[in-house]
Amino acid sequence: MYQTTKRTRLGRLPERGVYDRETVHAILDEGFVCHVGFVVDGQPYVIPTGYVRAGETLYLHGSTGSRLGLRPGDQVCVTVTLIDGIVLARAAFHHSFQYRSAVVLGRTRLVADPEEKDAALHALVEHIVPGRSAEIRPGDGSELAATAVLAVPLEEVSAKVRTGPPKDDEEDYALPIWAGVLPLTLTPGEPEPDPRLDLAIPVPSYVAAWERRSPALRQTAG
Amino acid sequence: MYQTTKRTRLGRLPERGVYDRETVHAILDEGFVCHVGFVVDGQPYVIPTGYVRAGETLYLHGSTGSRLGLRPGDQVCVTVTLIDGIVLARAAFHHSFQYRSAVVLGRTRLVADPEEKDAALHALVEHIVPGRSAEIRPGDGSELAATAVLAVPLEEVSAKVRTGPPKDDEEDYALPIWAGVLPLTLTPGEPEPDPRLDLAIPVPSYVAAWERRSPALRQTAG
Repeated sequence: MYQTTKRTRLGRLPERGVYDRETVHAILDEGFVCHVGFVVDGQPYVIPTGYVRAGETLYLHGSTGSRLGLRPGDQVCVTVTLIDGIVLARAAFHHSFQYRSAVVLGRTRLVADPEEKDAALHALVEHIVPGRSAEIRPGDGSELAATAVLAVPLEEVSAKVRTGPPKDDEEDYALPIWAGVLPLTLTPGEPEPDPRLDLAIPVPSYVAAWERRSPALRQTAG
Repeated sequence: MYQTTKRTRLGRLPERGVYDRETVHAILDEGFVCHVGFVVDGQPYVIPTGYVRAGETLYLHGSTGSRLGLRPGDQVCVTVTLIDGIVLARAAFHHSFQYRSAVVLGRTRLVADPEEKDAALHALVEHIVPGRSAEIRPGDGSELAATAVLAVPLEEVSAKVRTGPPKDDEEDYALPIWAGVLPLTLTPGEPEPDPRLDLAIPVPSYVAAWERRSPALRQTAG
């Protein structure tokens, strides 16, 4: 369990709050794009970027020229949101999303050690497209120098999960209105080869069979 | 065109920056979950929530008990990200996402006028599930009171778009590595009726045929 703090305890719908490591890790491992919030001159900025979890560390992909990459040591909030569906209740008020989200608060650390940085970038590619990292040309010195990797420790963490059917007011269940959940999933289409690709090179199986949710997760979440 | 400011001008990959209203509106109208960043005691928070655009105003769904709902007038950053695919290059460094994102900076205004609030909530439901708002039981007084709607003007706005095939270094094109784009779309599954639903009530066509991208958009974006 992650210890709750004043900053991670949910004020709103606390029954949806989840703090166990297993659930938090599962959310972070299924997602691959996070939204990072940071503050410059009192103004919050929120930018999407790729990430990977390694143990109790989150590695964020950045660029040395970006606002985020330029400011290691900043307080950040990293949020990962998985939208699993739309919850259609009989009452407007009870409409909702089926979702799982994780929120990580902490300070970024610029990953300077070349070995840690290399391992993090390798893990990042492998997290997003398992099987890919063994095939590609690894980064050279100048590419690694142009990439900023930021680490955020998984210490102050919370998750929020909504599952199950709509919850309407008792008197509304008699209304002749369809209610239920429309499930949503991020689905891969047909891989589109680079126009400059030698077409003798087949689509790798890890691309053709890419899917985000593990069979285990599908089972648990229905 | 939205006027660029020091805060919305892209430092990183400026060629991906887009400021025309049409593109920004299209991104905001296709998405339905945004990530809102705000600051409390120097700590940024990023939370997902539903939203709708009406003209040059973004309406965010909140709750009066949430950190966000409690703090109208705050500086926020509202980011909407659409992930269209994974870009698989020959070099690790050139891997990327196909994406369209919009970033709105501004101050929230608590929507207090009952008519504006009602219209915004109606538009919100209709934005997420077109056709739904005519069928459901509208919010009553106490439900409306428990819902916070925050408005953010579309004034300081930027978008970032990546399309097209991977861009590798010239010497890498000869490598025997598959390269291309794996397209991703948010796809609806079979609607799951509420276990308490009278099964004589059929799935409405606006649920069965729900899709996010308009045919026009599909055509443009391939």
